[in-house]
Amino acid sequence: MKTIRNKFALLAIVIAGLTTAYAQDPLPSWNDGPAKQAIVDFVHATTEAGGAKFVPTEERIATFDQDGTLWVEHPMYTQVTYCLERVPALVETKPELKNREPFKTVLSGNREAIAKLSMKELEQILAATLSGMSVDDFHAEVKKWIAAAKDARWKRAYTDLTYQPMQEVLRYLRDSGYKTYIVTGGGQDFVRAYAEQTYGIPPEQVVGTAGGTKYGYDKNGKPFLTKEPKLLLNDNNAGKPEGIHLMIGRRPYAAFGNSTGDRQMLEYTKAGDGVRLAMIVLHDDAEREYAYGPAQGLPDTKVGTFTQALYDEAKKNDWTVISMKDDWKTIW
Amino acid sequence: MKTIRNKFALLAIVIAGLTTAYAQDPLPSWNDGPAKQAIVDFVHATTEAGGAKFVPTEERIATFDQDGTLWVEHPMYTQVTYCLERVPALVETKPELKNREPFKTVLSGNREAIAKLSMKELEQILAATLSGMSVDDFHAEVKKWIAAAKDARWKRAYTDLTYQPMQEVLRYLRDSGYKTYIVTGGGQDFVRAYAEQTYGIPPEQVVGTAGGTKYGYDKNGKPFLTKEPKLLLNDNNAGKPEGIHLMIGRRPYAAFGNSTGDRQMLEYTKAGDGVRLAMIVLHDDAEREYAYGPAQGLPDTKVGTFTQALYDEAKKNDWTVISMKDDWKTIW
Repeated sequence: MKTIRNKFALLAIVIAGLTTAYAQDPLPSWNDGPAKQAIVDFVHATTEAGGAKFVPTEERIATFDQDGTLWVEHPMYTQVTYCLERVPALVETKPELKNREPFKTVLSGNREAIAKLSMKELEQILAATLSGMSVDDFHAEVKKWIAAAKDARWKRAYTDLTYQPMQEVLRYLRDSGYKTYIVTGGGQDFVRAYAEQTYGIPPEQVVGTAGGTKYGYDKNGKPFLTKEPKLLLNDNNAGKPEGIHLMIGRRPYAAFGNSTGDRQMLEYTKAGDGVRLAMIVLHDDAEREYAYGPAQGLPDTKVGTFTQALYDEAKKNDWTVISMKDDWKTIW
Repeated sequence: MKTIRNKFALLAIVIAGLTTAYAQDPLPSWNDGPAKQAIVDFVHATTEAGGAKFVPTEERIATFDQDGTLWVEHPMYTQVTYCLERVPALVETKPELKNREPFKTVLSGNREAIAKLSMKELEQILAATLSGMSVDDFHAEVKKWIAAAKDARWKRAYTDLTYQPMQEVLRYLRDSGYKTYIVTGGGQDFVRAYAEQTYGIPPEQVVGTAGGTKYGYDKNGKPFLTKEPKLLLNDNNAGKPEGIHLMIGRRPYAAFGNSTGDRQMLEYTKAGDGVRLAMIVLHDDAEREYAYGPAQGLPDTKVGTFTQALYDEAKKNDWTVISMKDDWKTIW
């Protein structure tokens, strides 16, 4: 009997620990200010039992853009780096590409010429390196690459360059009953290869740009899926709410983005009934990370463009702009 | 202190109740036999901590075909009935269809002529009645229809005609840590309108035949999504494993079907490592429900065809055939 009582004493401590976890600050890497307050207020309003803005657990959906919102996207999206680095292996299996552009330029290793590749040429490289293999082979290949590759500026794995304040938001929302989704312009299968380990987000909660697959059998009659170069969902701009409807089927209560590609997702989220949270990260911290806009006079960029028009829409429609410089105590 | 101790005594009872819930039979509507045993063995093998076949909770995915697997599909798929019944309302908004086939035949009310419509003509009716409206309007329309419509033979709501034994499997798997998905040839948005209430399956766990949507703004600038007549995923046959990869991104550990349209999903599931469960319902109970095959000499049908070749594949590859007549104590 004494043992049993001790067990329940232990259980009592565990339960007390769980319920008072957030007597402590759930967002320790955030400076006090309107951004942090908006998140805390939103969670309180939507989870307080009996409150006017209460949201049932099954409807608690929060969506996060990845590049520039959850992890670093400058100077170039990690997935594009992956695709460029895959070109030599691709050419080994398809030697006819060796002297064909844009593959020839990539193989030359001439960084300046590579940086000048047009969007159309980059898309050719993406299509060629992201299709034609089985989904299992692709998954294994990305896992291997992401475990070894390092960011040139910080000499750290890309998966170490996720924003600590956003990791805290993911955890805080999940602990508050929210299902957290990545809704990314990046490749769905690419992000799925590391999202669970990196963000605690399982593959079925990664919505991304997706190509078709084709079912077939290997020589032993074992079925497998091949990645096809056919685009099913371009998960950027209007494609984000469209992808959210396709894959989730509910309007999010909270959405986080950082660029014009997230505009429609934020609009769509904010247009729902009740309390909705729309937040957008402004990269205004050249010292600790990067500074780009061109909103608010920040340098212009093609990677993660945040225009002044988007900034004005945010201010007008009660989205909360997150200033990396002012709102985040730490970046990583 | 006494109150606290009483509280823990109560908690102890609750915990004991949870852990011994399945000391009782988790599948009371199933007769003892190989089908019931296969389900129980699978759950034990994949959830026993430390067991050789243990599956981590996050990988526990089970997929279920809907029509003919979870609810009645004869004499015609419920969704087709919905679409036929929507034709008058459609013609009111588009009078030019009134004298055009196949809409003219549907409006005639001539049951014999309607039953003779070709697959191509039915597809025209489906495309016209399942697109062109906002996703919210469609959702509301289906909810309203399904709450009122009745099956002609049983005079009961379609949502009352789900199979009780399969409802028990859904619950048993969920209680064992499995995420249950519907993977249906039916329309994803159609099934989502009632799946949560009917099966306890939320919209994000319904994979179905899906069309594209288009993001736009109403006259007040409020964003909304319109259902487009563009097919993104035909979730039948090879489309089922392809849809599972697109929407879930993991191979299921268990899959349930009843017709040739489920063949590839069952093959794909069974081809995974470790213990996998593939089950297929044979409708061999004309008295309590319907009898159709043509497997095992049952009458042939175009709705939910279960060929002898599929039956032979099931037997050869260690899928379990569920005999509705022998394995199910009750149907509803």
